[in-house]
Amino acid sequence: MAEAKVLSGAGLRGQVAGQTALCTVGKEGAGLTYRGYDVRDLAEHCCFEEVAYLLFHGELPNAEQLAAYQARLHQWRDLPDVLKEVLERAPSNAHPMDVIRTACSVMGMLEPEQDFSQQQDRADRLVAMAPSVMAYWYRFSHGGQRINCNSDEATLGGHFLALLHGRKPSELEVKVMNVSLILYAEHEFNASTFTARVCASTLSDIYSCVTGAVGSLRGPLHGGANEAAMELIQRFNTPEEAREGLLGMLERKEKIMGFGHAIYRESDPRNEVIKEWAKKLADTVGDTKLYPISVAIDETMWEQKKLFPNADFYHASAYHFMGIPTPLFTPIFVCSRLVGWCSHVFEQRANNRIIRPSAEYIGPEQRKVVPIDQR
Amino acid sequence: MAEAKVLSGAGLRGQVAGQTALCTVGKEGAGLTYRGYDVRDLAEHCCFEEVAYLLFHGELPNAEQLAAYQARLHQWRDLPDVLKEVLERAPSNAHPMDVIRTACSVMGMLEPEQDFSQQQDRADRLVAMAPSVMAYWYRFSHGGQRINCNSDEATLGGHFLALLHGRKPSELEVKVMNVSLILYAEHEFNASTFTARVCASTLSDIYSCVTGAVGSLRGPLHGGANEAAMELIQRFNTPEEAREGLLGMLERKEKIMGFGHAIYRESDPRNEVIKEWAKKLADTVGDTKLYPISVAIDETMWEQKKLFPNADFYHASAYHFMGIPTPLFTPIFVCSRLVGWCSHVFEQRANNRIIRPSAEYIGPEQRKVVPIDQR
Repeated sequence: MAEAKVLSGAGLRGQVAGQTALCTVGKEGAGLTYRGYDVRDLAEHCCFEEVAYLLFHGELPNAEQLAAYQARLHQWRDLPDVLKEVLERAPSNAHPMDVIRTACSVMGMLEPEQDFSQQQDRADRLVAMAPSVMAYWYRFSHGGQRINCNSDEATLGGHFLALLHGRKPSELEVKVMNVSLILYAEHEFNASTFTARVCASTLSDIYSCVTGAVGSLRGPLHGGANEAAMELIQRFNTPEEAREGLLGMLERKEKIMGFGHAIYRESDPRNEVIKEWAKKLADTVGDTKLYPISVAIDETMWEQKKLFPNADFYHASAYHFMGIPTPLFTPIFVCSRLVGWCSHVFEQRANNRIIRPSAEYIGPEQRKVVPIDQR
Repeated sequence: MAEAKVLSGAGLRGQVAGQTALCTVGKEGAGLTYRGYDVRDLAEHCCFEEVAYLLFHGELPNAEQLAAYQARLHQWRDLPDVLKEVLERAPSNAHPMDVIRTACSVMGMLEPEQDFSQQQDRADRLVAMAPSVMAYWYRFSHGGQRINCNSDEATLGGHFLALLHGRKPSELEVKVMNVSLILYAEHEFNASTFTARVCASTLSDIYSCVTGAVGSLRGPLHGGANEAAMELIQRFNTPEEAREGLLGMLERKEKIMGFGHAIYRESDPRNEVIKEWAKKLADTVGDTKLYPISVAIDETMWEQKKLFPNADFYHASAYHFMGIPTPLFTPIFVCSRLVGWCSHVFEQRANNRIIRPSAEYIGPEQRKVVPIDQR
């Protein structure tokens, strides 16, 4: 083979591994854009389904297109019986990401993508059913209930809350869920998306790509930060205690989750959005503890380390105020990022070369096998 | 972010994405080596478990170590009841790679890797049970039988054949299965292994890494070549017909599977090994058709295109002579490559940085959201 080029730095950081028309991350003056739109602009004016349509089809839908798309998703919210049977067999203490990864893989057996002409159908099916998967499994494993996976909520965000709580969510809750799903929907060549693209580059089916992506998002260096942030926030009882505890953690060089970012240098554009909504939820539920503690941690991190909160930090309290159990935080990320993953799969397929890098060899020199009785 | 470097060529071809001590592919004068040993040398002198031990632990085992390792794998061949129930629910026409991908994911729920100190146990468990998964599902879906997943075969290759056929395999069959599993065990940063490493780089669990890798191997540009080769060979009735048919295909610029390789330039070192064993099997079963047709295709490809058969081409007839149904060809690849995938996961974990490349943006300029009623 030709002499391979050794790249500076591990992890392919700063190395271009392909093209995308979906997203810019940390581009000068732009923060985070989906198909040219600032994510803050989208979070303010759109529902999640509008943004999914934008990522999949390139343009925001008009009212008629949006209604048609929501109706399309609506019909696919319920789960096949075999999948329900599998979910009921998952241990109640299973890692929720193991459950949703398995659900994606099972769907690949039950409703396979026969050829790429079906890719949009399969992607929409996964997006439509993911909230039901999480709610069904959680309610069954934690309360023995076989819930009805249909609701009359217009948006998937509202649908998820309705299934999880067995009651109609408030307007504010539905808005925040939509905002949250928009903020997490897409983020260029992050590790889970890149996993999906590597898989897509072998021309594998879309379920394989998504199943692999869920597996990568499961890793604590990727998807678990909002859960870890919640765990941190809940350790403290007052802002003063939080400040003091944090100073101790920093002195002991412990890792603080929910701050800083591999790509963003000055701030995470998603943070200002979710922080504002977390504040509104805190005011509504009458919280005088979790939100002030979050702010104290945020301020201490900036003062001590010049580190800013990323998208995950205020998501923790926002989700908590909506009554979402902490183990479901990362699975909600899946419900959202599915749109980004599938969009990247489509893009990879449209202009594909198999992704097959080289390695630098650091192993032993060539040697001969010694017969086993002489070893 | 810093200005990203645009790499020449898509697919990261020829770009170093990390280090490995496991394997060299196409290094001058070396063909394919595992930890310094020529794969041909290993295939001649070792059983699959010896090579698995080598890849996992760095050195070939002595007789005592091998016996202990085989005993360890022996105890883990049977499947948990819940997994059997899931396998019984897979449609009989399911893609076998969807089934084995799902099985890996389900195992992650049932016997999770709690922390990385368990990685070797979990890897050995997967290696030990993978042949049983395929045989159990195949025999149940294609004959309604719930087979016993234990056998007294010493090697996993023999165990697989015993379960699949419900009879003791011949010595020759066991030898060829061992050779085959050795040849497919490891191949540096191919797309499925790279998938596993990207997933591992988020510090996700080993089942996620393997599940993702199975998904990538499922792609027709990666794992499906031996199935496609079988399909090609079975189109013809005589060597003459094969030669003529192939000339027609080449003229129509149809893709011929099982020839050439992304990395090897002159020959695939695995081919000479499996070709020899395919010939021995052909002689033993008294074949006068499939093997001669394979040779005719091989010779015509070289004469017309200077393309050599890769590892997959003669695997097709070898597997066929052992009575293995064509849909199980790629899953056998999984049973073998599991060792390579898990070894790479261990290596990635030991010296990790999250794999997160950049993308070249080719999408629209920044724009403002237009209210939906004005779209």
